[in-house]
Amino acid sequence: MSAPGVNTYAEITTQPDAWAQAVQVVRQNAASLRQRTPSDYSQVVFTGCGSTYYLSLAAATLTQMLAGGVCRGLPASELLLYPDGVFPRGQGRTLLVAVSRSGTTTETLRAIEAFRAAGRGDVIVISNYPDTPMATMGDVNLIVPAGREESVAQTRSFASMYVAAAATAAVWGGDDALLGALDALPPVGERLLREYAPLVQRRGEDLGINQIFFLGSGPRYGLACEVALKMKEMSLTVVEPFHFLEFRHGPMSMVTPQTLVVALLSDAQRAAEAAVVTQMAELGGQTLTLAESQADIAFASGLPELARGVLYLPLLQLMAYHRSVAKGLDPDRPHNLSKVIELDAV
Amino acid sequence: MSAPGVNTYAEITTQPDAWAQAVQVVRQNAASLRQRTPSDYSQVVFTGCGSTYYLSLAAATLTQMLAGGVCRGLPASELLLYPDGVFPRGQGRTLLVAVSRSGTTTETLRAIEAFRAAGRGDVIVISNYPDTPMATMGDVNLIVPAGREESVAQTRSFASMYVAAAATAAVWGGDDALLGALDALPPVGERLLREYAPLVQRRGEDLGINQIFFLGSGPRYGLACEVALKMKEMSLTVVEPFHFLEFRHGPMSMVTPQTLVVALLSDAQRAAEAAVVTQMAELGGQTLTLAESQADIAFASGLPELARGVLYLPLLQLMAYHRSVAKGLDPDRPHNLSKVIELDAV
Repeated sequence: MSAPGVNTYAEITTQPDAWAQAVQVVRQNAASLRQRTPSDYSQVVFTGCGSTYYLSLAAATLTQMLAGGVCRGLPASELLLYPDGVFPRGQGRTLLVAVSRSGTTTETLRAIEAFRAAGRGDVIVISNYPDTPMATMGDVNLIVPAGREESVAQTRSFASMYVAAAATAAVWGGDDALLGALDALPPVGERLLREYAPLVQRRGEDLGINQIFFLGSGPRYGLACEVALKMKEMSLTVVEPFHFLEFRHGPMSMVTPQTLVVALLSDAQRAAEAAVVTQMAELGGQTLTLAESQADIAFASGLPELARGVLYLPLLQLMAYHRSVAKGLDPDRPHNLSKVIELDAV
Repeated sequence: MSAPGVNTYAEITTQPDAWAQAVQVVRQNAASLRQRTPSDYSQVVFTGCGSTYYLSLAAATLTQMLAGGVCRGLPASELLLYPDGVFPRGQGRTLLVAVSRSGTTTETLRAIEAFRAAGRGDVIVISNYPDTPMATMGDVNLIVPAGREESVAQTRSFASMYVAAAATAAVWGGDDALLGALDALPPVGERLLREYAPLVQRRGEDLGINQIFFLGSGPRYGLACEVALKMKEMSLTVVEPFHFLEFRHGPMSMVTPQTLVVALLSDAQRAAEAAVVTQMAELGGQTLTLAESQADIAFASGLPELARGVLYLPLLQLMAYHRSVAKGLDPDRPHNLSKVIELDAV
């Protein structure tokens, strides 16, 4: 039996290789993707379960910003249980982007099958495993094997599939500069992991913190949800994600000196977002900021804002790893969880 | 100075009157509403802040189920800060349904103004106060004065505006039976408050519970978010809402014998939802179920499922009230909060 968290640590720290492969896979499928662009459909629905639902939230907003259309992210279970609340009546066609690390998650598989059976539109699959039922179910299948992993909690896999979604949005948006910027991310990610590992270890090991909020707006909201889930799964900490300004409408009632507020700041709306962080510090909360510049973790990437989403992930995943170890838990084996959720009741 | 929570208690327990007025207001505006139906637009966006954002999530799903179209709920701050992630490019028109108790929430006001200035489509306002800037900003203005309240935490107001949204969806769907069913709700709500008040007082006062999860799918997801926020604001308890099946993809790692899982069960997908509740009980968690029948709180309303959403609210609001009082807090005055959030930085 291996040391606690050895897989999770390796998967977090080697992930930039998987980002590179994700961009490559999308380039190889660019022609097929261009035949199915968001504006050809009534809506684009991104879907998954757990982490890949949060990926869907992030990718939907990013895709709409880059490529237009009406794009939204929803849990696969909602597509399955409440299709009338998801798909338009009548002739409206949907482009379904189904995301699954394993390619075997029951809800997502059944959601695709039901979508096909009802003739609702076309399907794109994003996954990490080539030899699964889901890997060939799409009209386009974007498979990134370098994202595969041993751990229950998704880290490298999530980031690799997010980069695939971002590259797809760049292709749909005809934005070659953005696609090039995604190619330039891996060395930036490696540098950040070297430079800020001591900082996130220190914050992760601070067990005086008893509650953590992750704030992100626009395409960063889904990313905030995902890093919150990592912290919850690995370290059993009380955590919750919010849109920046939403946090002021109720949830900030929970802020105390034992609270950490983690801010995934943008360039575009920095002033409005930073004002929330300042207010939480004034209420006595602790803060940790991530941004391109002038932040506790500063990317200094020089890349366009919409290419930079994946950079928010590795160090916050690593903070969850360190908190898990500091609490005497095993990051590789979250409490109550298994790697793939298979349903009985649906 | 009045006793702790006197306003909140009165507002929760008198709310069925406000439901009745909400249906009446929508009937009076039915002709104007029929001139602007979801299928005439690329999408319907419901928006608000905090509680009214959660109302937007619930109303969007309900509206799409009843009236078709593509309907989604988003925080007003996202419309304001990231409009390219919300509104389609080009000629696609949006129907904006803006919801605000006070009619003065800065983010929502500015989101409407920006929407108008950009010529993105038509506007419907749902609010409780007639003499405010927002009350006349819509092409249709649905104002329900009986929902007005003194408390910071929204209870009667929320429910009244939710009923207005449900009645609007019924009008758009041409579903007169559903509209009639909404008329029949107030006596059911009054009976439930009488019958189950002792039960929710007992559960609310049980301070052995240290974390509460609220589960709801379809149109009940937004309602689960709202009752979770009430519990957080009033009682500073650690709470979080989830879609039923999503809870199994990570968050259930937090379940312990001190955890309460509150289930807003449907008829349509009862088996799949109840299986999650059973699993959480097997993991050692406590549970509280709400449904039309065979549940801890059984509505026994005899009304159609899609008319019944508001019935999930009063008793769970009352449980938050009792937990607040049991913790020595004042439900009327949540920690860190004020009644209307006004922005400086946007």
